[in-house]
Amino acid sequence: MTELVFKKTYSPLSSSEIIAKEKSNMDEQRFAHCVRVSSTAQKLAELNGYDQDKAALAGFVHDYAKQVPVSEYREVIKTQGFDPDLLNWNRAIWHGIVGTYFIKRDLQITDPEILTAVDRHTTGDVQMTTLDKIVFMADFIEPGRDFPGVEEARKITFANLDQGVAFQLAHSLEFLVEKRSKIYPRTFAAYNVWSVEEN
Amino acid sequence: MTELVFKKTYSPLSSSEIIAKEKSNMDEQRFAHCVRVSSTAQKLAELNGYDQDKAALAGFVHDYAKQVPVSEYREVIKTQGFDPDLLNWNRAIWHGIVGTYFIKRDLQITDPEILTAVDRHTTGDVQMTTLDKIVFMADFIEPGRDFPGVEEARKITFANLDQGVAFQLAHSLEFLVEKRSKIYPRTFAAYNVWSVEEN
Repeated sequence: MTELVFKKTYSPLSSSEIIAKEKSNMDEQRFAHCVRVSSTAQKLAELNGYDQDKAALAGFVHDYAKQVPVSEYREVIKTQGFDPDLLNWNRAIWHGIVGTYFIKRDLQITDPEILTAVDRHTTGDVQMTTLDKIVFMADFIEPGRDFPGVEEARKITFANLDQGVAFQLAHSLEFLVEKRSKIYPRTFAAYNVWSVEEN
Repeated sequence: MTELVFKKTYSPLSSSEIIAKEKSNMDEQRFAHCVRVSSTAQKLAELNGYDQDKAALAGFVHDYAKQVPVSEYREVIKTQGFDPDLLNWNRAIWHGIVGTYFIKRDLQITDPEILTAVDRHTTGDVQMTTLDKIVFMADFIEPGRDFPGVEEARKITFANLDQGVAFQLAHSLEFLVEKRSKIYPRTFAAYNVWSVEEN
């Protein structure tokens, strides 16, 4: 693997400081996933005419807060102006939406495009920027992912980013409904916008 | 089949007048479906301690407006105070929510419990009364239905009405997502309330 360096960090911290902080905030497996999402995001950026270095950074930090303790999340939701309904959800939802708080606090990244991409990466949204789509899809298809349909997901996404988003949202809904899991309303709304084929 | 008679019609019209009006508003196949839903609703009412005659009537009229022309629906949505967003949907959604307008106008049934059950029968809802659940489930499992899983649906529903609702909402979401169909937001919200198993 080539050495991980971000030319621009959108933060007072240097590239190596951000990488060190992220490494200390998660286990090795999670860190390796973040590195793979970073390089997949870079590839998707190249294919879609987006700033590759910025996509690589956004992909890298997307799961920065995935392993923050639940108690800390609950405290942050209560005290930092987040929608109290978030208390009815779990870390699978929090690490995107509330994860942005920890990225601002610890990594001092304030770029709104990067923060929005992190915010939306677990749920999708009705409106998604190119960077939102890149991080959302890189997380889904990075080379370490192995689920039925992942090859199809990769093929679709590399050919057409929007169709990748459509695929992931439908695939995730099917997966969640099959498990009878509660589904975040934003994911439903996103499905209706991105995944629906004209009837 | 025993003769169809409703002891109470919740309308100035008699039982036979309501039946005649319904017959003239749809084709034979649809009418036979309504009769089957009526008798299934009656059976579910018996099992759940609800007024059997009222459930039979609600089940009977649930699809009263299913074959009203699209142009008439659009006109009614625009002029009768319905949410204009309904114009973005189709008869599959309209015949429940907007169907209540035609039932009030033509069958002169004004009982709010019956009208709500018709309103909710295609989408489900976050809150559902016993009659709502009865009509929702009778429509899903009436003897003419034949889809993979219908026997399981019947078994679950006859054993526990709420679990039937949970089953139908999840089943319908899976079916719709597989087809990449647009899903009415109320159905999503209902799924999250009725179908989710604790995680």
